[in-house]
Amino acid sequence: MKIVALAGGVGGAKLADGLAQLLLPENLTIIVNTGDDFEHLGLYISPDLDTVCYTLGGLANTDTGWGRREETFHVLENLQKLGGPDWFRLGDRDLATHIERTRRIQEGQPLNQITRAFCRAWGIDYSILPMSDQSVRTMVETTEDGELAFQEYFVHRKCEPKVKGFHFAGIENAQPAPGVLEALEQADAVVICPSNPWVSIDPILAVAGLWSVLAAKPVVAVSPIIGGQAIKGPAAKMCIELGILPSALAVAHHYGKILSGFVLDRVDTNLAQNITIPTWITDTLMKNKDDRRRLAQGVLNLIEIL
Amino acid sequence: MKIVALAGGVGGAKLADGLAQLLLPENLTIIVNTGDDFEHLGLYISPDLDTVCYTLGGLANTDTGWGRREETFHVLENLQKLGGPDWFRLGDRDLATHIERTRRIQEGQPLNQITRAFCRAWGIDYSILPMSDQSVRTMVETTEDGELAFQEYFVHRKCEPKVKGFHFAGIENAQPAPGVLEALEQADAVVICPSNPWVSIDPILAVAGLWSVLAAKPVVAVSPIIGGQAIKGPAAKMCIELGILPSALAVAHHYGKILSGFVLDRVDTNLAQNITIPTWITDTLMKNKDDRRRLAQGVLNLIEIL
Repeated sequence: MKIVALAGGVGGAKLADGLAQLLLPENLTIIVNTGDDFEHLGLYISPDLDTVCYTLGGLANTDTGWGRREETFHVLENLQKLGGPDWFRLGDRDLATHIERTRRIQEGQPLNQITRAFCRAWGIDYSILPMSDQSVRTMVETTEDGELAFQEYFVHRKCEPKVKGFHFAGIENAQPAPGVLEALEQADAVVICPSNPWVSIDPILAVAGLWSVLAAKPVVAVSPIIGGQAIKGPAAKMCIELGILPSALAVAHHYGKILSGFVLDRVDTNLAQNITIPTWITDTLMKNKDDRRRLAQGVLNLIEIL
Repeated sequence: MKIVALAGGVGGAKLADGLAQLLLPENLTIIVNTGDDFEHLGLYISPDLDTVCYTLGGLANTDTGWGRREETFHVLENLQKLGGPDWFRLGDRDLATHIERTRRIQEGQPLNQITRAFCRAWGIDYSILPMSDQSVRTMVETTEDGELAFQEYFVHRKCEPKVKGFHFAGIENAQPAPGVLEALEQADAVVICPSNPWVSIDPILAVAGLWSVLAAKPVVAVSPIIGGQAIKGPAAKMCIELGILPSALAVAHHYGKILSGFVLDRVDTNLAQNITIPTWITDTLMKNKDDRRRLAQGVLNLIEIL
């Protein structure tokens, strides 16, 4: 069974890792959101790509949910002493990724090629593809602070400003990165990982042609909202500010017709009756590597049934 | 007594530190070569400015002669794994300096202002000035490899290519940095620290107007060549390739008429008879902080006599 997984940051990376524990490299392609990418300190930073790569490479810090394990912050500490901006927590090992990515981008290498080279260096056999080599920037439209770049909203402003909508700057010129359409066309099914639907998955779906290719495939999504709460990040808060009751149901409705199957947590069992497509109810919280594999196995089982 | 010291890298930084042990901040200004500055990995690096600042701030690695003490190389190690260029050894703490300098330059801050802010952050009360805020790049003309940027010659090629001359790209547009002319005008004397005359001191002297201002002052130089050998760096090798017998005498001749006094090492006592200006013969090797102060005291004594 050939699977394409769509992923944002932490939650998406965990399920992608679960799928990688079960599938051979030739049978799994992970397409990652790049709408969160931004430039900081002259560096090109791809937070979601890095989270997915670090997770699959066994390099991720599972305590913080971002950055590298066994990380140090000597650069950042010294940058602070010099009065430099320190709101984005860049570790020393992580910084090497951004420095080398930036160097290669300035040399003219496309993001997908750089990501492939990095995966090789980190011993990752799976295809991890940016959704696009072109710049797409998720902009958060707020009620009181105008339009904020995603990381400005997410990290610097700690998701405090009230959200009224989103748009993806540059989306009209973004083409799927090489390999993305091919992987989708060859896929038996698509897994939408438990990432934020509005700011992690929507940018991927908005890249030219991807939504329609997806709609022709069996698509299974795993809810990132459990018991009305987001495991990580502002999904539930965003929901409320957008006038939507935060729940797994809201996630299923958000993806609407493209979904063929849906996975939700045991605590949301009562919501399943309102979902007309096949569902699988399980523990969706992934606390360790076994949880990831078990959830991934359930997702694959649901796909088999469809 | 108000003193201006001209300095390049390690040797210059050490004597500057010795002078700082003896003089109040308002009586010492250190003008530093920026001809070695270069861009690497998108970062603006000022090796001599950093060496002088790290030395006066007590942050320098006295074992290696470059970089910071108690340094780690987590960024570089991870950059290596990704196939990034690793020929310039950037430590983590050192990297913060380059990242923040680059950010400020891109914001439009001039180098002298950035250096002042960094000195304040590092607790350095002395005026350390770049020779110029404008870009000057020391180019090494080689017999077989054409023209090489200084760090390419010095670090990447390990001074192996044979030298036939130098020029300072951009020197025609370089103005002395704010404070440089004022400090020189108010100075009772100028100390040329034991730095490479061709590539560390000449760029400073070549900045518009500095040579002539200097020529009107008592100027004392300390030879960076001891017993025909450079303590550090390629000064002696350059000498030979330029057809000059490497010796303290060659250094004195190089500075020529602007010198009022000269300091040379005990091992070169026999050369003193060929020098017509007042000399002081002493141990010029600075192995520790006391050596620096003792040599600086001798230089100040010689200035008193002149």
